Amino acid sequence: MYATALDCSAKNFSKRISLDLLRFTPGGISRAELARQMGLTRSALTTIIGDLMESELVREAEDGPASGGRRPVLLEINPQRGRVAGIDLGATHLHLLITDFAANILAEAESPLNITDGPQVCLGKVHTRLNRLLDESRLSWQEISAVGVGVPGPVEAQIGAVSAPPIMPGWDNFPIRAYLSELWKRPLSLNNDADLGALGEWSYGAGRGERNLAYIKVGTGIGAGLLLNGNMYHGNSGSAGEIGHITIREDGPPCTCGSRGCLEAMAGGNAIASRARAAAKAGRRTQLASFTPLDTLSARDVAAAARLGDLVAQQIIAESGALLGIAIASLINLVNPGLVVIGGGVAECGDLLLEPIRKAVQERSLRSSGQAVRITASLLGRRSSSMGAVVQALNLALDTLVDHS
Amino acid sequence: MYATALDCSAKNFSKRISLDLLRFTPGGISRAELARQMGLTRSALTTIIGDLMESELVREAEDGPASGGRRPVLLEINPQRGRVAGIDLGATHLHLLITDFAANILAEAESPLNITDGPQVCLGKVHTRLNRLLDESRLSWQEISAVGVGVPGPVEAQIGAVSAPPIMPGWDNFPIRAYLSELWKRPLSLNNDADLGALGEWSYGAGRGERNLAYIKVGTGIGAGLLLNGNMYHGNSGSAGEIGHITIREDGPPCTCGSRGCLEAMAGGNAIASRARAAAKAGRRTQLASFTPLDTLSARDVAAAARLGDLVAQQIIAESGALLGIAIASLINLVNPGLVVIGGGVAECGDLLLEPIRKAVQERSLRSSGQAVRITASLLGRRSSSMGAVVQALNLALDTLVDHS
Repeated sequence: MYATALDCSAKNFSKRISLDLLRFTPGGISRAELARQMGLTRSALTTIIGDLMESELVREAEDGPASGGRRPVLLEINPQRGRVAGIDLGATHLHLLITDFAANILAEAESPLNITDGPQVCLGKVHTRLNRLLDESRLSWQEISAVGVGVPGPVEAQIGAVSAPPIMPGWDNFPIRAYLSELWKRPLSLNNDADLGALGEWSYGAGRGERNLAYIKVGTGIGAGLLLNGNMYHGNSGSAGEIGHITIREDGPPCTCGSRGCLEAMAGGNAIASRARAAAKAGRRTQLASFTPLDTLSARDVAAAARLGDLVAQQIIAESGALLGIAIASLINLVNPGLVVIGGGVAECGDLLLEPIRKAVQERSLRSSGQAVRITASLLGRRSSSMGAVVQALNLALDTLVDHS
Repeated sequence: MYATALDCSAKNFSKRISLDLLRFTPGGISRAELARQMGLTRSALTTIIGDLMESELVREAEDGPASGGRRPVLLEINPQRGRVAGIDLGATHLHLLITDFAANILAEAESPLNITDGPQVCLGKVHTRLNRLLDESRLSWQEISAVGVGVPGPVEAQIGAVSAPPIMPGWDNFPIRAYLSELWKRPLSLNNDADLGALGEWSYGAGRGERNLAYIKVGTGIGAGLLLNGNMYHGNSGSAGEIGHITIREDGPPCTCGSRGCLEAMAGGNAIASRARAAAKAGRRTQLASFTPLDTLSARDVAAAARLGDLVAQQIIAESGALLGIAIASLINLVNPGLVVIGGGVAECGDLLLEPIRKAVQERSLRSSGQAVRITASLLGRRSSSMGAVVQALNLALDTLVDHS
């Protein structure tokens, strides 16, 4: 660990840090401020910025704020230097973004996807949809420097594959990263979708500046992404944050993972949808009953009905929130984060889900941890994970360009 | 974060890293190997080691391993450079160590303590017992460079106090660190006891070289210490690892923390002792029934009886293990550690407790996480936390000496 930091070229190391400071500070930074934050002399910084401007990675922003006399020149990432793609594969949908180097969105698409169709079918769809998005937005593959991809299962970084993913049958150990980087001839980063949600919200959303952050994705699956001590935390085999599989009820219903009473089995998208179908079939007064065919009713539909005032739907969402709250209180007691961000399709009903979560957390978390934490809805919404994928793609692109600058 | 690394004197930074490499590598390291691990040139390393030898922090070990020709000279921490004290306050006992700079134990003591007597009484006992231990071992305060202290509650580092500690009534916000460092006129490090257990086992016990480690202390309270990405993890307000207060049964018995169904309320030392008393009163055939007065029967007594073959005691310990296993499976799903070390008084019955834990973990953890983890008993036993306190005391002592070298 120590050796790496000391081994690598100090100049490239400083360049990379400058770029990160510029990327994650909205509005740009003056040379003087950047030198101060980096702990570098003005002349050392001038050399570094000179190199970065020469390779067109950094530029002077057009407008600095007026400060009485001369305006300080602000530096920023050069958005025009290149493009990246960020792709989020969910259980039931696919979300794609193309951004410039400042993570400004240039093109966006969403498509249905059935993750249980397996890797060949799903990755084929991703390829087709990405090509179509490039066409539609008059962008070309030549402009894309790197790609980030998220998947709803535990990712083993070393092999670039998912390992025993409960809601991704057929994907176990399929070499996703190798397959796509071969197909696209681009540097490619593969990560768990909830991990990317945490990174996306930390970089551009509700979690800016937080040191310890958990992002909970509530959809068909329930997963958490952890950002601890200011860094992504993946655990020993890339499976950290699997909050969906912590036991809520010792003798509860069986789960896809082989255990029973897991949070996901009791409060995940499938549990929500099946409770809604049962309510409709039981003749309860709910607009969900008019959904045809009832079998296709999804958790997102329940969330939509809840937002429109359907009491049965609201009750189902609230029950899910109360169970989520128990698990999130456990996470808070174990990890003591400063912020918990709730995202994913079900989270779109906002306080209907968040209030029962907050109540359970207040009741069940230790006072010292409960007082330290805020619980909030995601700011980036459906884009949390794909923006996280963009951040990872930009990391790869900048690493490569700095090494060659 | 970046600024700090670049601001600090590069030479002192390298000295401190050299010392850590020497501290945690049993048997010493040759100059060539140290230069390689540090990514430094031989001449840069020579300067650094020269300084450290001049200030008597490092010395040449007496025997290098023979390797055909000339033996390489191995460097090691100079054990004689000073002494530190490591102190662990438990709920019912006090454990003290005095070591040299290589963490070799020079003196050791254990005393009963009732943490609910509050800070004035307890810290007075600590002071008296430490002075007596120094006397008994013919050591003087002059030789003690720094002290590390562990307490069974969440420690807020900024204020050097415990915050709303469930099993430490009367201690909330009492300035423990300020009080003791004023009393002893020494640098003092205050930490949670389970955090110190993790650090102790990582430094000198079952967890050497692990990147992600959880240490679970099972005593009156149940707490976890987390070492993540190779660093201690404390969370936002020092409360990380409070596994004792995660919900095991939604409508379970009330807990000292104000919640209900917490692991600690169901499987902690008090729960074990009260189940044992109930079994004895119910006339079950157990040697525990002959314990007088029955009210003083403790979890440690139950563990001792279990080790001696008492079936009722064994059953109570196994039930506790099964509940612990549910919570530890949750921790494994969330944190994905490579190793879980079980310590504390109850853990002294070894596999009687560990086997039900392993079984529950196998059933309830996600395959990718369950396969990545080993679950083992602590190697340092009652010394885990006090050895962690020694590590922290040595950190303070070495920081001070390097700054002045």
